[in-house]
Amino acid sequence: MRATTIHAPYDMRVEDVPEPVVQLPTDAVVRVLRACICGSDLWAYRGEAARQPGQRIGHEFLGVVEETGSEVSTVRRGDLVVAPFMWSDGVCDYCREGLTTSCEHGGFWGSVGYDGGQGEAVRVPFADGTLVQLPKDAASDDHLLSALLTLSDVLGTGHHAALGAGARPGATVAVVGDGAVGLCAVLAAKRLGAERIIALGRHEVRTDIARRFGATDVVAERGDAAVEAVRELTRGQGAHAVVEAVGTEQSMRTAVNITRDGGAIGFVGVPHGSGTGLDLGVMFDRNIALRGGVAPVRAYIPDLLPDVLDGTIDPSPVFDMTVDIEGVPGGYKAMDERTALKVLVTGDR
Amino acid sequence: MRATTIHAPYDMRVEDVPEPVVQLPTDAVVRVLRACICGSDLWAYRGEAARQPGQRIGHEFLGVVEETGSEVSTVRRGDLVVAPFMWSDGVCDYCREGLTTSCEHGGFWGSVGYDGGQGEAVRVPFADGTLVQLPKDAASDDHLLSALLTLSDVLGTGHHAALGAGARPGATVAVVGDGAVGLCAVLAAKRLGAERIIALGRHEVRTDIARRFGATDVVAERGDAAVEAVRELTRGQGAHAVVEAVGTEQSMRTAVNITRDGGAIGFVGVPHGSGTGLDLGVMFDRNIALRGGVAPVRAYIPDLLPDVLDGTIDPSPVFDMTVDIEGVPGGYKAMDERTALKVLVTGDR
Repeated sequence: MRATTIHAPYDMRVEDVPEPVVQLPTDAVVRVLRACICGSDLWAYRGEAARQPGQRIGHEFLGVVEETGSEVSTVRRGDLVVAPFMWSDGVCDYCREGLTTSCEHGGFWGSVGYDGGQGEAVRVPFADGTLVQLPKDAASDDHLLSALLTLSDVLGTGHHAALGAGARPGATVAVVGDGAVGLCAVLAAKRLGAERIIALGRHEVRTDIARRFGATDVVAERGDAAVEAVRELTRGQGAHAVVEAVGTEQSMRTAVNITRDGGAIGFVGVPHGSGTGLDLGVMFDRNIALRGGVAPVRAYIPDLLPDVLDGTIDPSPVFDMTVDIEGVPGGYKAMDERTALKVLVTGDR
Repeated sequence: MRATTIHAPYDMRVEDVPEPVVQLPTDAVVRVLRACICGSDLWAYRGEAARQPGQRIGHEFLGVVEETGSEVSTVRRGDLVVAPFMWSDGVCDYCREGLTTSCEHGGFWGSVGYDGGQGEAVRVPFADGTLVQLPKDAASDDHLLSALLTLSDVLGTGHHAALGAGARPGATVAVVGDGAVGLCAVLAAKRLGAERIIALGRHEVRTDIARRFGATDVVAERGDAAVEAVRELTRGQGAHAVVEAVGTEQSMRTAVNITRDGGAIGFVGVPHGSGTGLDLGVMFDRNIALRGGVAPVRAYIPDLLPDVLDGTIDPSPVFDMTVDIEGVPGGYKAMDERTALKVLVTGDR
């Protein structure tokens, strides 16, 4: 089959690789119908996260079950399924508590020896714990498929950020980061009842999506000017709930400074750089909490799925470019150059 | 009257100062019956927190109302009252939400121009918002007075830490820091229903109090060895809820490393040093939250007071040395040299 591989920074290839097969009784093989490129894939693309030459990549996909191991009981051949960005066994302490990202047997797509989502098919470990069934008729609805694909990462991650920040009815939420996760956090905050949602971003295409997702205000300024602008919008107090969806020191510093006393930062931007951007003295004086991390999206899918299926929320506008598998390297280039927000990859139909 | 002043590092004096009087209609004057020395006073004593020569000090006291301004309505002359470690107006947004430490008109005892608790009397701004009435007959009960005095800071701060860490029925709580606040966090965690409480500390006198307060396990190791010991006690997972009651990089590092995935650190140690001790990468991967800061103890007093009055909790063992006002400098020395855990100051009777 064809699959995306990474050989060096900026060297993405689509190559012939062995067809995946069931290796363990808990495995399934899924033929990929839709996948996408994540902002966090760019860290590997740019060489800021190390990869071995030839390693697979891609951690967001949905598709059709092709084969299952003898112990798999919740999905079967022909089922339409979505995979979260990590696999998990579904039975350990952490999985039972909903923290599937801490699963004792969990792992990441594209790890050495494992398939990635940006390929024609994927061997899925712990299929019962990992995969979630979708209605079969969704397979013929392009728009709905795009929306459902966000359950694999960005929608659940935005939801995790909004929960961590404490988005709730009546609250003012501010979102730092105008990438797909930040935009999904706007959508999630709206869904959780936030009264006012301030999106920080300067790219009009993105802030337009933010408004469509529920943002009531947009702040285009950065740094100190952004802090001042948010404070002006909030009677000088700051936002009750702040989402940090970038992962840089600067964005975290902004997040701390726009949080209202007693509020919280929900952080889901993968931390980069040596410093944290956290001023612990300020957080102490003002009782600002920090909650978040890698999102246990598997645990959120049952909660979010019905709202996506019935159209209550439609995250599909985060995709603004579509490629087939051979076009994946071009998709990386577009996202790296910020000419695309998020790239959809259509698989074998 | 006599009051404690600080002139330079290690130069504490007890001097004649003007008697406080009501200056504003919202003021009260309180004659101090009991005060104490706080671990955080030592930062000033050691010169690690700047003070102007002659500045007052002490932020924990209870006493008898001597005079009230014309607008004070909730306390009157003769009432026994306890003061939290900051004053607050009781009516602003933050006060109404229970975050009295962020009060728009709040302030600290011993600030330039204000009395400190380690003196014979104190002018109390915003008496209605600040002071809490106690039963008058407690004034004749030495033991109860000591217990009630902890409502001004250490008990409420320990409670804030336990809440921030997420202490709850069934949880395993670990407490980093064997000072009076750490010990009160043990007591608070027990009160909140924690099933297992691991106290980290190597001073037997203190860990004995921790056991009396509800600690089920004591870990005397430090650094990596402490982390290993806590993990051994928790099936390798760490504690659901971790209190950080020291404020150093090392103690925060320990706190992060002994927290179970998905758990939280309740931090109340005043941050010292340039680094935070926070490994954001670890916190991200394991979804470890950080909550806490300066404790809004005023808001907690109504909740904690009944349990202190009826003996459900007795925090008084944190006091292991008693001095009168003239003995305060000696009390600082004893706490600095760790020959005393916490020093009680008896006032004018």
